[in-house]
Amino acid sequence: MRLDGGVSESFDTVDIIRAKRDRQELTSEQIAWTIDAYTRGVVADEQMSALAMAILLNGMNRREIGDWTAAMIASGERMDFGSLSRPTADKHSTGGVGDKITLPLAPLVAACGVAVPQLSGRGLGHTGGTLDKLESIPGWRADLSNEEMLAQLEDVGAVICAAGSGLAPADKRLYALRDVTGTVEAIPLIASSIMSKKIAEGTGALVLDVKVGSGAFMKDRDQATELARTMVELGTDAGVHTVALLTDMSVPLGLTAGNALEVRESVEVLAGGGPADVVELTLALAREMLAGAGKDDIDPADALTDGRAMDAWRAMISAQGGDPDAELPRAAETQQVTADADGVLTRLDAFQVGVAAWRLGAGRARKEDPVQAGAGVEWHARPGDAVQVGQPLLTLHTDTPDRFDRALEALDGAWQIAPDHTAYTSSALIVDRIAAP
Amino acid sequence: MRLDGGVSESFDTVDIIRAKRDRQELTSEQIAWTIDAYTRGVVADEQMSALAMAILLNGMNRREIGDWTAAMIASGERMDFGSLSRPTADKHSTGGVGDKITLPLAPLVAACGVAVPQLSGRGLGHTGGTLDKLESIPGWRADLSNEEMLAQLEDVGAVICAAGSGLAPADKRLYALRDVTGTVEAIPLIASSIMSKKIAEGTGALVLDVKVGSGAFMKDRDQATELARTMVELGTDAGVHTVALLTDMSVPLGLTAGNALEVRESVEVLAGGGPADVVELTLALAREMLAGAGKDDIDPADALTDGRAMDAWRAMISAQGGDPDAELPRAAETQQVTADADGVLTRLDAFQVGVAAWRLGAGRARKEDPVQAGAGVEWHARPGDAVQVGQPLLTLHTDTPDRFDRALEALDGAWQIAPDHTAYTSSALIVDRIAAP
Repeated sequence: MRLDGGVSESFDTVDIIRAKRDRQELTSEQIAWTIDAYTRGVVADEQMSALAMAILLNGMNRREIGDWTAAMIASGERMDFGSLSRPTADKHSTGGVGDKITLPLAPLVAACGVAVPQLSGRGLGHTGGTLDKLESIPGWRADLSNEEMLAQLEDVGAVICAAGSGLAPADKRLYALRDVTGTVEAIPLIASSIMSKKIAEGTGALVLDVKVGSGAFMKDRDQATELARTMVELGTDAGVHTVALLTDMSVPLGLTAGNALEVRESVEVLAGGGPADVVELTLALAREMLAGAGKDDIDPADALTDGRAMDAWRAMISAQGGDPDAELPRAAETQQVTADADGVLTRLDAFQVGVAAWRLGAGRARKEDPVQAGAGVEWHARPGDAVQVGQPLLTLHTDTPDRFDRALEALDGAWQIAPDHTAYTSSALIVDRIAAP
Repeated sequence: MRLDGGVSESFDTVDIIRAKRDRQELTSEQIAWTIDAYTRGVVADEQMSALAMAILLNGMNRREIGDWTAAMIASGERMDFGSLSRPTADKHSTGGVGDKITLPLAPLVAACGVAVPQLSGRGLGHTGGTLDKLESIPGWRADLSNEEMLAQLEDVGAVICAAGSGLAPADKRLYALRDVTGTVEAIPLIASSIMSKKIAEGTGALVLDVKVGSGAFMKDRDQATELARTMVELGTDAGVHTVALLTDMSVPLGLTAGNALEVRESVEVLAGGGPADVVELTLALAREMLAGAGKDDIDPADALTDGRAMDAWRAMISAQGGDPDAELPRAAETQQVTADADGVLTRLDAFQVGVAAWRLGAGRARKEDPVQAGAGVEWHARPGDAVQVGQPLLTLHTDTPDRFDRALEALDGAWQIAPDHTAYTSSALIVDRIAAP
């Protein structure tokens, strides 16, 4: 893998597109040239989109994806956490409904002695964004300079902030192009987009939470496995200790989807309570991060029960201007949905819940849209739970009550109540673990 | 097939790209919308190039290609030869080296009572352009209005002129895009590009000369057959009597490649002489055109021997301002290449001869380049001919003698002389005939 960014030779763009179109392997030099020339505007958008489609349909091998990722990294700056007094570990989730895990996870791992530099994004579509969630805390700010980030990592041990535009800028341009040309779903390009930023960020260890199921980007287990394996290979080849967990996203995580709603649930977890699935996944990811950073002798469960994780959370929020004791915003209006039968909840569809939360105002359709801090969906039962006719099943929250109807539309057929447990099959939350051989 | 151009529904471009990417069939409405929206700038170049790549790799079925072609036609004007007193027939060649067939063919068929509206192009790359050849005749002009073209078709029966920009303008934009995005080689798009212009032109019958071999765009017989079959289907579905001949382009046609050089050879054919292969192909294509126009009782060979084809040629050239009796330009410099052994010429590579003629100045590398009227390559033997050491094998012609070296480089290894005929296998000029079932 080339990480030096030195590009000397010149190539013909059309020859490179034709090579991938005809299922040939691209050379390291061709790939480095292509990304550099795209950044310089020598490779035009219409050429890059044709190449992206050829990559989507014909694939790239491990070396090509590594070179592609290295070229993306070379398009921007690299960070270095070598000056810190402790090892670093980061987590990336491919995105799910109710996925607030970063919020309890970062302070928990920090409380165990490993620094967590979590560069996050805002939400788009039916999955929420970590920064949107934290911005519901009065005073909290997402934008830090590299120096502020480093200082907070040293002092507090955890930082969740916006990724600067300096990391892999070619990825930003390419992602926007893929979004309008039907080429988002190319596994080599998804993997290199995620990993170029994580490798450039300079983390020592990385755990990937690759979601699979209706509420995830990858609906299909084989595809999710291929994406996970590709990213683990990329991280490993770049010297980052990388492990992926494949986790279920057919049911939404926890009991809430929304910004302030998820912060509240995260604080419950940090206080030693919270929904069992959120606790299970937080601890599983924490164990992987600690192991990746060489601290597999530490049990993170202790830091949840003895208050150290909560202390780290409070310090992390305060360091970024937030008030950890402030009242969190609540939506102006709520509407309840009640169970229409006695029995057992056998299904609650993650995608539909995510779309409903989005429509209520928790997410955005376009990058420039605002989000509502209090909007979202709460569910009062999870699949496997007994329910009684008339009991609250869901509570919808929004500041704009004219959105209730479209949210209810999105929820049409999203759950099922069976007479008894015989119709319910529980499924594992952590489906698989993928590590370098 | 929709020919009305009416596009009412609206679609999401990304959905259409993803559908073809995922090997789905596009609907008639989706295709009509896509081409219309591309013409209006609603579908961006980077989206169209991704779609073109998906079409290249995943294909389109007969209905989709028909709809695509109809949408291209609907983007511009249609011509109508219904007012002419005789039937019309046209020919299209996919391009070869030394392929001057249009020049004798158009007046020959006209002399047999069928009008030939031959809209032609200029050359780009190693194959020459019909208009470039005719423009070596002093005074001749390629640009006619539709009214001049119709009048000449009625009076003379044959016209070879530049295609106006009004026919299938979407094709012009799409072709330029495909050229820079590695998507030229998509058979559905090649077929619809050619056929949209021929159908919009309004010819009653059409014969396609699909070249296969080193000097052709299609090097491979299976691909050439698929292209021929696709075009015959498109023509047939649009009500044009269409037949394709698959012809060999591993050896260049005739004995010359160049502009004035090929006009001279064409005039020899019209005078009842000329190289046997040029005569054979001209007559074969003429018979198909006459049959397509309902005149299969006429033998075009008679019109070559009795001077009627030559009369039509002279009338056609004069009608467009050309002097059929004018001396044709000759290149300022020539250089001879002689045989280095006694024996039999077993091979003469069409592609290499084409590149040499191009480099000598007969063709252009970019659309805006000028061409030399006198430049080109003459060969004094064809595969199968006996040669003697020291005899002239090739004569190179150019106005710019510094080009000889690069032309000779292109010819390196282009021919082979074996001791006797045992090493020579003759191959058929007309390889296959493809007609609607």
